[in-house]
Amino acid sequence: MSNFNIATLDGDGIGPEVIKQGIKVLNQVGLKFGHTFRFDFAPVGAVAIDETGSPLPDDTLDLCKRSDAIFFGSIGHPRFDNDPSAKVRPEQGLLKLRKELGLYANLRPVAGYDELTHLSPLRPERMKGVDMLIVRELTGGIYFGEKGRRDGGDTAYDTCLYTRPEIERIVKMGFEAAGNRRSKLTLVDKANVMESSRLWREVTREMAGQYPDIELNFMFVDNAAMQLILNPAQFDVIVTSNMFGDILSDASSVLAGSLGLLPSSSIGSQVGMFEPIHGSWPEGAGQDRANPIATILSAAMMLDHLGLVKEGDAIRVAVNATLASGTGTEDLNPKKKVGTEEMGDLIAAAL
Amino acid sequence: MSNFNIATLDGDGIGPEVIKQGIKVLNQVGLKFGHTFRFDFAPVGAVAIDETGSPLPDDTLDLCKRSDAIFFGSIGHPRFDNDPSAKVRPEQGLLKLRKELGLYANLRPVAGYDELTHLSPLRPERMKGVDMLIVRELTGGIYFGEKGRRDGGDTAYDTCLYTRPEIERIVKMGFEAAGNRRSKLTLVDKANVMESSRLWREVTREMAGQYPDIELNFMFVDNAAMQLILNPAQFDVIVTSNMFGDILSDASSVLAGSLGLLPSSSIGSQVGMFEPIHGSWPEGAGQDRANPIATILSAAMMLDHLGLVKEGDAIRVAVNATLASGTGTEDLNPKKKVGTEEMGDLIAAAL
Ligand SMILES: CC(C)[C@H](C(=O)O)[C@@H](O)C(=O)O
Ligand SMILES: CC(C)[C@H](C(=O)O)[C@@H](O)C(=O)O
Repeated sequence: MSNFNIATLDGDGIGPEVIKQGIKVLNQVGLKFGHTFRFDFAPVGAVAIDETGSPLPDDTLDLCKRSDAIFFGSIGHPRFDNDPSAKVRPEQGLLKLRKELGLYANLRPVAGYDELTHLSPLRPERMKGVDMLIVRELTGGIYFGEKGRRDGGDTAYDTCLYTRPEIERIVKMGFEAAGNRRSKLTLVDKANVMESSRLWREVTREMAGQYPDIELNFMFVDNAAMQLILNPAQFDVIVTSNMFGDILSDASSVLAGSLGLLPSSSIGSQVGMFEPIHGSWPEGAGQDRANPIATILSAAMMLDHLGLVKEGDAIRVAVNATLASGTGTEDLNPKKKVGTEEMGDLIAAAL
Repeated sequence: MSNFNIATLDGDGIGPEVIKQGIKVLNQVGLKFGHTFRFDFAPVGAVAIDETGSPLPDDTLDLCKRSDAIFFGSIGHPRFDNDPSAKVRPEQGLLKLRKELGLYANLRPVAGYDELTHLSPLRPERMKGVDMLIVRELTGGIYFGEKGRRDGGDTAYDTCLYTRPEIERIVKMGFEAAGNRRSKLTLVDKANVMESSRLWREVTREMAGQYPDIELNFMFVDNAAMQLILNPAQFDVIVTSNMFGDILSDASSVLAGSLGLLPSSSIGSQVGMFEPIHGSWPEGAGQDRANPIATILSAAMMLDHLGLVKEGDAIRVAVNATLASGTGTEDLNPKKKVGTEEMGDLIAAAL
């Protein structure tokens, strides 16, 4: 029996309503397994900008630092869409959180659900056996390298920079994840063009000796973007840089048939953060339409990370049973359609 | 009646055999429409490294500069695959050619063929109406920005740099291409993270006033990678930077069902270059197995660019008729399977 303090940053759009279902399920897990979860709410994203002027207020960051885990909803509001260069933007809250907390690894599992193959844009035969994990570097690369303007603003640049230790720690995570799965690791890079990619390859090749049981291979990012569509089942673990991971994980996220199914964790030296991969879907907010499964499965990843693997598995079993019953939110085109709240109730009840 | 000098860089692997079919078809066009094409061969890629030590010998570059067009096969050899940091590599020939000739725009049309929807990894309903053109910037960005090592090699960086004139000329091409098509232009960038992307948006937004009939929209690259799979028919013309264009054009190239179908042109201030988008497929080389259609359609793009639009259309009609007859190379899983040579013969005969 343990107590956990969960910093709960439910954010914008559908964030609050899907987080609510995650909490419902976690509380049910608490009852069943004898744990107590305390959820401390704090603002992030557009709501935080409205309340405090900052997308990541200091109080929110402090709360995150002293919690056992961060449960994150989604951020973003249409009023920022037409001005990506606005000085204050919701995304900055997320980027700063990653950097400040040292969340250097973003893990995104993608698997097909047998009952849902009809939803995938891919033909069913291509989805057979799809079960991969994308390990994306999250606090380096072109996201955080030097950037700026010259020539009175008419020249703009961004620097993609990686150091050996930054690469080592994320590639280590890739090797270890592969060891717990099907023992295959693919480094995705553009080593025929980029110097930083060449360093990734060097470091990864050197480290391979420590993992003799892992089958390591290399793939250029353009080819990887093709292979994810042509034959996604070939992948076990993919490890890659921040920008390539952003692109490839979004591309692979559509394979499962709905963005509403896919969880993620962001981990590193300090407290971990767990969030659905979908965005804030402003048009759907407050309408009881959003699929809470991505958030509920993110809660399961949180439990795994807190050492409660049995509990995490119980959530996954409950989700699978609920999906197998043919009930689902509208995105799943289900036999029996339910709303966000009812979906949360059903999964909690299935525990 | 005109004469054209075509620098013919057939390159490595299957390059020579597909180029041979392109020449066959061009010669047939010449007979039919009264033009003469002279094909001057010159080495590039791995064969050029073997012959001269350089992936782009000066003689090859000189020939290109004084020709009317460049007909390019493919480059690459497996002996380079395990060492992307080798000092001399086949790709360098291609990158140098683009830069030296000022080929700043890479145009890749992607369309579905009704007869071939069964080959696409996407479900048939998703392929309906797919007809897009990717306009990729080809001589700037992270490919050609400053790159290097520091800290005794343990830090590596690449710079993505764009200037206003570089952006203006490629975006102009995007707007104009859209004007000749369905009047929709999508700029793909990562303006919520990259300063260079913010400059792309600024410049594009400013230019939009000159093209009041074009519907302009903006999309982040991670979302674009998803949308290309979920709903590729939404796109008309996509304009984007070098690296994003590399990734997105490879991703979208699989939609049509075979890489062996897709042509490209690289154009700019000087002579244009025309090549299939597929690579050198070393395992298939010399076996009469490669699909020559991508190369033959690249020849059609070359004719368009030389002002011979009627002639280019004639090639496209001949290719469509041949595909419609159910004959094809093995990649097309055809009713009647033929080899590279016979496919070239059939298309030439259909002219
Ligand atoms: C919102 C944006 C900055 C972010 C990113 O690119 O990292 C998002 O796309 C993601 O993948 O989490
Ligand atoms: C070979 C490589 C350097 C090249 C590129 O990335 O530009 C290729 O992938 C392409 O797209 O033409």
